[in-house]
Amino acid sequence: MTRYVFIGAGAIGSAVGGLLAARGTDVLMVARGDHGRAMAAGGLRLRTPEETVSVRPPTVTGPDGVVLRPDDVLVLTTKTHQAEAAIDQWADVEVHDGDTVRGRAADLLPIITALNGVASEEIALRYFARVYAACVMMPAAMIDPGEVILRGTPQRGVFHLGRYPTLPADDPDRREADARWLSGLAADWDAAGCHVTTPDAVMDWKYRKLLSNLGNVFDALLADPGEAGDLRRAAEAEARRILDAAGIGYISDETDNAARRPHFSVAKVPGTPDRIGGSSWQSLMRGTGTIETDYLNGEIALIARRTGDAAPLNARLTALARRAARNGLRPGAITIDRLTDELRDALPGTSLPGTSLPEPV
Amino acid sequence: MTRYVFIGAGAIGSAVGGLLAARGTDVLMVARGDHGRAMAAGGLRLRTPEETVSVRPPTVTGPDGVVLRPDDVLVLTTKTHQAEAAIDQWADVEVHDGDTVRGRAADLLPIITALNGVASEEIALRYFARVYAACVMMPAAMIDPGEVILRGTPQRGVFHLGRYPTLPADDPDRREADARWLSGLAADWDAAGCHVTTPDAVMDWKYRKLLSNLGNVFDALLADPGEAGDLRRAAEAEARRILDAAGIGYISDETDNAARRPHFSVAKVPGTPDRIGGSSWQSLMRGTGTIETDYLNGEIALIARRTGDAAPLNARLTALARRAARNGLRPGAITIDRLTDELRDALPGTSLPGTSLPEPV
Repeated sequence: MTRYVFIGAGAIGSAVGGLLAARGTDVLMVARGDHGRAMAAGGLRLRTPEETVSVRPPTVTGPDGVVLRPDDVLVLTTKTHQAEAAIDQWADVEVHDGDTVRGRAADLLPIITALNGVASEEIALRYFARVYAACVMMPAAMIDPGEVILRGTPQRGVFHLGRYPTLPADDPDRREADARWLSGLAADWDAAGCHVTTPDAVMDWKYRKLLSNLGNVFDALLADPGEAGDLRRAAEAEARRILDAAGIGYISDETDNAARRPHFSVAKVPGTPDRIGGSSWQSLMRGTGTIETDYLNGEIALIARRTGDAAPLNARLTALARRAARNGLRPGAITIDRLTDELRDALPGTSLPGTSLPEPV
Repeated sequence: MTRYVFIGAGAIGSAVGGLLAARGTDVLMVARGDHGRAMAAGGLRLRTPEETVSVRPPTVTGPDGVVLRPDDVLVLTTKTHQAEAAIDQWADVEVHDGDTVRGRAADLLPIITALNGVASEEIALRYFARVYAACVMMPAAMIDPGEVILRGTPQRGVFHLGRYPTLPADDPDRREADARWLSGLAADWDAAGCHVTTPDAVMDWKYRKLLSNLGNVFDALLADPGEAGDLRRAAEAEARRILDAAGIGYISDETDNAARRPHFSVAKVPGTPDRIGGSSWQSLMRGTGTIETDYLNGEIALIARRTGDAAPLNARLTALARRAARNGLRPGAITIDRLTDELRDALPGTSLPGTSLPEPV
């Protein structure tokens, strides 16, 4: 029986793993810190708009003492910053088939990269032979240890999943085996309330999600992110220009909406705060000291620089978010006036400092 | 006056920084652990075939209390594994011009990635607007804290340096400014015994160096790396096939040799061990627990997987090196028979486990 091993089970990993566990599917949660301790001691509470479900999935802090099995599926749900350390820790864990050692995880087991951004796939591929990228659309939040708030209904989320890199078109046998394996996974996840689609060009979905995630930084920094309308549009416009110039594809807004709409809408969970932000907001809320903006707005800055171009607005937002996380700021710590001021010379129509070569010595 | 800030000053950073300091050029060493403490307390000894030079470069453990200046040049000399944490730590450090804050390091200062492998350039470019890749050819070793052994003579090393990514050909002004800046740097480094060339396609040099570095793992694992001849050739042949298939360029062996030969050859330093290995050997020797093979042989495995191909021999070597480092093995801990046995089913002409898709569940 397939077991799903959630490496870095925060909001998303705990949500999917918890939902699977609630349906009797085998899971293993890997989590450290307060949340890992809370899950190990008292189990996991999933609060949805309709009900609260309590489960007790097996929980470990790392691979020590874990025996992996040939039908295990690793699901990476850390933040990108932590991805490499986690992968390095799991790549060489032995896979046992009864009493026989079959080999190492990185050679034998699939790993699903269920993270925001588009960088974790290459990180995983350095170690693992068989990588699946996941585009995660799931309004899940972890505010208190041991508890996850799931605001999607009736399904809890939609996942676009595909092999990374895409298998060659001229290899129908491997493509068919892959599709068969993915449909087994989709059946497990669908039954648990996590709808799975398996598009061929999964990275086009992840780049579209990246565009949406460029606004996370405003949710995190501002008390009222609604005030960021113009800045948000400017950051997204800059990003679309950069992706288009780089020839990077992303699915249309219409396709994106159409994929989500029939499966879930976002509803309030009784007894939870009115405002619950995305992953960046949660990072500042929990005071983790880090934030994934380097792999969201920062990805746009990187893509721009690859062609000698610049994305000053997304670059500046990345630096501001990093500073806020490092200094332990909470969501809403920056006013819109202050933020606009910090971004002024990076906005379109102004001269762009840092993009021209400083006068050499 | 230009100051060179060596971030992660181990063998290479300490060697170049120490040589520059010995010529009166301004440097700042950033180093932690035993070596950082030894340099801060007692200075740095450079042992060359001809002489031993002692210098006392300013040494810090991190950016706390450091005031960066507009003409500082950051030189990253960590291992690739540590690169992102180091860059993240320095990207937002303020740059002061007298009493005026000019901005952040990542916007204003150039950073040179003087690491083995070809991955650190993209890591730096995510944060820094102005990145220069360096291909480092320098037989330097750090075995004891506070001391570096330099076996190159009469020059101590050769560095191929260029902007990453290459500036567009249709932007002659920026290219000229860049060339001017590079020639200033080359003058400083040349005077210190570090010969600098500035090829346009610097990554072609780094990929050639990567091919040479594929053998580092044998130096690290075997008592007599001379016994690895066949394995070494097989690993390099696999890598050349993978690079060629991916359309990745690398300079020829002749060009590589011709660039080095006039400037230095490797000589014995009196009173040092007869056998001194490369960076991977030094990692096992010092028992650091990590090894850079993931970014050497592991890079070949990654490039292969990007096109749905496989590099089983380099992948296996990467896993073996990682295990050796994690388990605290010392150089020479594995016999050639044992190593050959571990690699047997990854050698050409055998079936390649882990490269075909396991039967899906």
